[in-house]
Amino acid sequence: MVPRYARPQMTALWEPEARFRIWFEIEAHATEALGELGVVPKSAAKALWDWWATNPAIDVPAIDAIEAVTKHDVIAFLTWVAEQVGDEARFMHQGMTSSDVLDTCLAVQLARASDILIEDLDKLLDVIKRRAFEHKLTPTIGRSHGIHAEPVTFGLKMAEAYAEFSRCKARLIAAREEVATCAISGAVGTFANIDPRVEEHVAEKLGLAIEPVSTQVIPRDRHAMFFATLGVIASSIERLAVEVRHLQRTEVLEAEEYFSPGQKGSSAMPHKRNPVLTENLTGLARMVRSYAMPAMENVALWHERDISHSSVERYIGPDATITLDFALGRLTGVIDKLLVYPERMMKNLDKMGGLVHSQRVLLALTQAGVSREDSYRYVQRNAMKVWESDGQLSLLELLKADPDVSAALTAQEIEEKFDLGYHFRQVDTIFRRVFGEA
Amino acid sequence: MVPRYARPQMTALWEPEARFRIWFEIEAHATEALGELGVVPKSAAKALWDWWATNPAIDVPAIDAIEAVTKHDVIAFLTWVAEQVGDEARFMHQGMTSSDVLDTCLAVQLARASDILIEDLDKLLDVIKRRAFEHKLTPTIGRSHGIHAEPVTFGLKMAEAYAEFSRCKARLIAAREEVATCAISGAVGTFANIDPRVEEHVAEKLGLAIEPVSTQVIPRDRHAMFFATLGVIASSIERLAVEVRHLQRTEVLEAEEYFSPGQKGSSAMPHKRNPVLTENLTGLARMVRSYAMPAMENVALWHERDISHSSVERYIGPDATITLDFALGRLTGVIDKLLVYPERMMKNLDKMGGLVHSQRVLLALTQAGVSREDSYRYVQRNAMKVWESDGQLSLLELLKADPDVSAALTAQEIEEKFDLGYHFRQVDTIFRRVFGEA
Amino acid sequence: MVPRYARPQMTALWEPEARFRIWFEIEAHATEALGELGVVPKSAAKALWDWWATNPAIDVPAIDAIEAVTKHDVIAFLTWVAEQVGDEARFMHQGMTSSDVLDTCLAVQLARASDILIEDLDKLLDVIKRRAFEHKLTPTIGRSHGIHAEPVTFGLKMAEAYAEFSRCKARLIAAREEVATCAISGAVGTFANIDPRVEEHVAEKLGLAIEPVSTQVIPRDRHAMFFATLGVIASSIERLAVEVRHLQRTEVLEAEEYFSPGQKGSSAMPHKRNPVLTENLTGLARMVRSYAMPAMENVALWHERDISHSSVERYIGPDATITLDFALGRLTGVIDKLLVYPERMMKNLDKMGGLVHSQRVLLALTQAGVSREDSYRYVQRNAMKVWESDGQLSLLELLKADPDVSAALTAQEIEEKFDLGYHFRQVDTIFRRVFGEA
Amino acid sequence: MVPRYARPQMTALWEPEARFRIWFEIEAHATEALGELGVVPKSAAKALWDWWATNPAIDVPAIDAIEAVTKHDVIAFLTWVAEQVGDEARFMHQGMTSSDVLDTCLAVQLARASDILIEDLDKLLDVIKRRAFEHKLTPTIGRSHGIHAEPVTFGLKMAEAYAEFSRCKARLIAAREEVATCAISGAVGTFANIDPRVEEHVAEKLGLAIEPVSTQVIPRDRHAMFFATLGVIASSIERLAVEVRHLQRTEVLEAEEYFSPGQKGSSAMPHKRNPVLTENLTGLARMVRSYAMPAMENVALWHERDISHSSVERYIGPDATITLDFALGRLTGVIDKLLVYPERMMKNLDKMGGLVHSQRVLLALTQAGVSREDSYRYVQRNAMKVWESDGQLSLLELLKADPDVSAALTAQEIEEKFDLGYHFRQVDTIFRRVFGEA
Repeated sequence: MVPRYARPQMTALWEPEARFRIWFEIEAHATEALGELGVVPKSAAKALWDWWATNPAIDVPAIDAIEAVTKHDVIAFLTWVAEQVGDEARFMHQGMTSSDVLDTCLAVQLARASDILIEDLDKLLDVIKRRAFEHKLTPTIGRSHGIHAEPVTFGLKMAEAYAEFSRCKARLIAAREEVATCAISGAVGTFANIDPRVEEHVAEKLGLAIEPVSTQVIPRDRHAMFFATLGVIASSIERLAVEVRHLQRTEVLEAEEYFSPGQKGSSAMPHKRNPVLTENLTGLARMVRSYAMPAMENVALWHERDISHSSVERYIGPDATITLDFALGRLTGVIDKLLVYPERMMKNLDKMGGLVHSQRVLLALTQAGVSREDSYRYVQRNAMKVWESDGQLSLLELLKADPDVSAALTAQEIEEKFDLGYHFRQVDTIFRRVFGEA
Repeated sequence: MVPRYARPQMTALWEPEARFRIWFEIEAHATEALGELGVVPKSAAKALWDWWATNPAIDVPAIDAIEAVTKHDVIAFLTWVAEQVGDEARFMHQGMTSSDVLDTCLAVQLARASDILIEDLDKLLDVIKRRAFEHKLTPTIGRSHGIHAEPVTFGLKMAEAYAEFSRCKARLIAAREEVATCAISGAVGTFANIDPRVEEHVAEKLGLAIEPVSTQVIPRDRHAMFFATLGVIASSIERLAVEVRHLQRTEVLEAEEYFSPGQKGSSAMPHKRNPVLTENLTGLARMVRSYAMPAMENVALWHERDISHSSVERYIGPDATITLDFALGRLTGVIDKLLVYPERMMKNLDKMGGLVHSQRVLLALTQAGVSREDSYRYVQRNAMKVWESDGQLSLLELLKADPDVSAALTAQEIEEKFDLGYHFRQVDTIFRRVFGEA
Repeated sequence: MVPRYARPQMTALWEPEARFRIWFEIEAHATEALGELGVVPKSAAKALWDWWATNPAIDVPAIDAIEAVTKHDVIAFLTWVAEQVGDEARFMHQGMTSSDVLDTCLAVQLARASDILIEDLDKLLDVIKRRAFEHKLTPTIGRSHGIHAEPVTFGLKMAEAYAEFSRCKARLIAAREEVATCAISGAVGTFANIDPRVEEHVAEKLGLAIEPVSTQVIPRDRHAMFFATLGVIASSIERLAVEVRHLQRTEVLEAEEYFSPGQKGSSAMPHKRNPVLTENLTGLARMVRSYAMPAMENVALWHERDISHSSVERYIGPDATITLDFALGRLTGVIDKLLVYPERMMKNLDKMGGLVHSQRVLLALTQAGVSREDSYRYVQRNAMKVWESDGQLSLLELLKADPDVSAALTAQEIEEKFDLGYHFRQVDTIFRRVFGEA
Repeated sequence: MVPRYARPQMTALWEPEARFRIWFEIEAHATEALGELGVVPKSAAKALWDWWATNPAIDVPAIDAIEAVTKHDVIAFLTWVAEQVGDEARFMHQGMTSSDVLDTCLAVQLARASDILIEDLDKLLDVIKRRAFEHKLTPTIGRSHGIHAEPVTFGLKMAEAYAEFSRCKARLIAAREEVATCAISGAVGTFANIDPRVEEHVAEKLGLAIEPVSTQVIPRDRHAMFFATLGVIASSIERLAVEVRHLQRTEVLEAEEYFSPGQKGSSAMPHKRNPVLTENLTGLARMVRSYAMPAMENVALWHERDISHSSVERYIGPDATITLDFALGRLTGVIDKLLVYPERMMKNLDKMGGLVHSQRVLLALTQAGVSREDSYRYVQRNAMKVWESDGQLSLLELLKADPDVSAALTAQEIEEKFDLGYHFRQVDTIFRRVFGEA
């Protein structure tokens, strides 16, 4: 975890105290079920919950001190709880194995992390939607291969991002389901010493599904799928970040990351406003993506489990969720406040002197009876002049002045072909597809 | 593509002929829609389909020869079709861009590849289920950290695999949905020169969803999710493969990859039956997993598209699906014919002289009124003897002969604690969870 | 292997015939050594080499047909050779194990592949060097964060690439040494049935080092290092490819991938010259990079070997070397013929109306006695005007007209600060560092 | 960074104080050179070093507080130093850019981290060597595919590890050279405002090489190579860890991670000694390996730099080096104290009743004039009996009792073929190759 790329809500989820609180809940719910089943006295769970109702502080150093002796984290925790609660606590954990607690706790943490991330995505989607409608018809040049192609609108770029992050949200909801399972099934998953109904009870109380069949642990294909999904989401963040970085290039400058009016550009160069936030997001995406690999390597544990996955998860559990949460928040801020420059967009669009319309003129000439070869030649010779003038000449003016062209098309007909609006006739259709409204 | 790790059905999907056939279908369906919309004569689609109905061979070398001149694969194909179909073919592709054809074609290929993979998974699941019920109550030792823990059944191991590959199937169905979309939206996705209803028509005919908003291409987060999912499935293959490899170790030998009765072991060593199929699967899993990375890097294309994703997909499109198809088939064969040795399983289980039951005796002593400390001491001193004898002594016999133990428990009571069946009481519950029956 | 990204020389290295030829050499050299040691008759090696001297064709289908029966590739090959050579051939392979042949063959293939790649790098370096000196003093704007910073020269960009690929060459030479080892040490590497001098002899003849200690196989950390190195080289290819893609953007257009004078731009848009070669290289780099992962996972083989590495190497052995060879060749072509536009570079450099020189003026004012605060204010107010004019106003003219500035500096002094040459005083120093000459 | 997988010496290197100390050294050395060149007064460097000689504490919170205002870490640091040193400090950093400090600092950190890791490797190599000689001739079964093959010695296994980690050390030394460069070349690497001799001076003082040509930053192919190398080393750690895990399996039990004599096995099962340290190392290897990917993606920065690499390095700089340092230390401890069980090794070796010697008997029969087919049949029929007896029968005894065999070979001749020593005749040769002594 790198503190500067972490936000408190997500970070708190991975702190020892949060983990111990979840452990307690698992143990107390299990004791409750054991009480119902007559395995332990019902008073045991009551004692635990009564203590919990006092909202006791979790004394992490005290628990750590016990662990230093017992060399076992779950036993250390149980011992400490027993010291607080008293005699009734001895019924906790009956028939359970440490992994029951650890893996179910991880499930709770990942589910809660997912909830935060889903909320992050909702905020991002809101912001993107607002910017999409704001610029629904703001013309800008569409580029393939970095080269001007045909006009699009800035709103369409936002609509693409909206559709993409909507998919990300759906994937995240699915990924949450993957990992939100509870296993309380004993040393090798046979329920030899614990009734499956305990698992069912704890699962229900914690909002988890039961794990249909576990070994000593919850199977790690679930976690692999979870972290792979985060990697895909991070890649979508990178895509939008790279778009902003391109738009902010000195020569393009169609949009910029926000800077406050009074904010100084670096030294005496007022143009030096660097897209550092989106560059940063590009790097963060690389990290989150990389965590998919060790998560997949974690799947093939030996027999009923080995513990090689554990160290990996101590890194990527916090790192992937904390980093992604931070990145989503940062991206939301960038899009929310993005400075968009429609005039510059139009200027760039016009940079080619109207070349983006050449194809429509070509078509019109053909429809007016000019052979395809001649049509191409007429347009091409004017287009070349415009191109060589580096945007100083206008294709429209040249075409109107070209006797071959004007023999086939009136000035008005030519002008009509230079109508940007023509390209945007389906923007509403697309918006309705993406947003359900236009 | 490595021919020895490829099966014909999947390979065929990626051959030029298959691709051209899909291109034709896309173009013909689009022409049909254009005809309905009055953009081109209805006779155009009819001419195309009439020709198609003659089941014409696709002359790949002829198309390649045209491409060598035009330097453009889609134009080469259209030219060749036009040569076959005649004048009506000139109405094809109106208002479309090459990517409309290429990306929709890739969608069809990945959807069909998914269908094959789903079928593969169904076959694998069938086989696993059969072996699970066959060995539902075949006792075998459960191992954590590679060390004997408590008894499980071989059927439970199969049930775990069944549950895991059921999840894989669900993931694959979701991944198929991710990529099965159709985009026919023109040069930069604005439908500037083509009606969105063409896209709707083609999508419906090809069994695809429409892409709500595309740029020049279908967004690559979809493909990233697809290949990441294949990587997770490959990791589950690795897990089961590694399990078999462990079971076949000389010292364990609880199961073996099939060898025919007459088949010679290597040279004069009859024990030298190597788990080469599952080792091979381990390697194949590494490959399929690795393809997730470039797929994720493909997401952040520049602006409305750059073509960097294309070369990546020429590798991983075929390689990931062909390899995974082969691996699933191989794994199905391995499990189908796996030689399972219940006697050896029991022998290994007993190897520790009954130590796996020590915990239950301990509990019984406590319940019989012996203090926890004494109970532990009585069991531990006998357990140590068994352990040091390397399985020659029997814990049951030693305990029955121990005066402190026999003072608390009758011989019969002790024997009851050595009942394997005790561990398997919940196997039916688990089977019902996994298979819906027991 | 994707045929369109493959060149014949490298591809040939991985074809069955090439492999069989190397196998023969290994076996014949080994038989020679065995003859010298008196283990087999000296006539055996002679018979083999005599046959070889006839330059016999390798009948791959015949060998495959034998393998279909024996299920063993090395035995199939030996059988076929024996059929050709006759009785003396039975002394081949004495005391050897298949892996001795397979692993030493892979070493030869990777060493030869390295030689081709080193040659590729030499050609690339030559081309880069030529372009570097050609444009040693061609001014262009340096950009950090995509934003104009201070002037550099295009030759410096090339010098960076030269230094980077020189490092790549050194790394490749080291990687070649990693994998160029010979192991002929028998079933588990103990030389139980073969004298170590055989290994020494074969190694010397094939230009390999001996493997100091092998198991059944050559340790795979060597191969991991090899493929990781290729991944790093691919990443450097990506860097230069991305630089070209940026330079070719419509708004930047300081350089372009070559197109022949007569070559048509796409349709009627003459500006539509897409950097498809460098985009392609970006994708290829993703692939080569991805192969490092499975290569690293291959290291931890079980005990004296399992065969999981083998399938991985059947993919990445050819794919990584063939793709990298192709990519280096393509990059060499791109740089060789790159269209460089110095006038456009200068135009872009001037785009900011001289803002890139503001820092030097600031310094000069301070040195002329103006307070730092005032200096900053004088420069900043003029710089802002230039910036807001979008390059229409000139900072030099504004500063000369600013009374506060002209009170401190003469027009000539101000003009001196706008000297581009000032920035390039150390270009020769850098060139000498990189090329050993300037 | 995960505290439990971190050791103080390496962690300290990445703490803010260590970074600030290196920054100071860079700035002070640079000021010294600037003084020598007459750019700033010589007194400036003197003032800095005089203050430094007082061994001042670095007030990290104070610097952070300044950064909170200036939003610039290097400026914040310089400001704080100026507050401590006084007026002379204003000459620091003249003509430099922040990246000069940051990148050179990273170089120092990675070089120092490398020194620690090299020391770690030396310790590991020492321990491995000791165990290798201790068990030079301890027989143990060699396994391919997890199946018994032919005898090796435990010392040979150690020799392999020694050779592998010797290679790792050489690679690490090379990787250190890759990153140990100094760049003080100004805003875009042209030395426009700083003399290259400053760079040379600082490089020499800090034990770095000069960067022949930099942009604003040191090129990231260097770092990619560095982290890829760490990934390979981690993979070698995994290999040895997996070997130990296999050896500790209940059924194999030829070696165990150390446990103190008094240490309790888990509950009442004395055999439950889990190889948790080596399982942990397996997981840590996955992490270190994964960091190679983002490091390679960092290479293709835009133009003269973007800052996307920075966030990646904030993670992997500390995480990769700290984790690898910890892992090397842990592995050294494991091997140092590894409990090796030669008797059990012999027992396992004999498990196959002498089958491992069958090949030698086969050869002897042939040499005694029996046809190859008959020889094979005689050995095979006895081998099968042994195999089916699960190690209860002895191949030696059966062969001696077989009339066909005894007709060809005397009992003594047969017994000679069962000589383990035969397999170990070349152990000294191998040891001399690996250790330079035997």
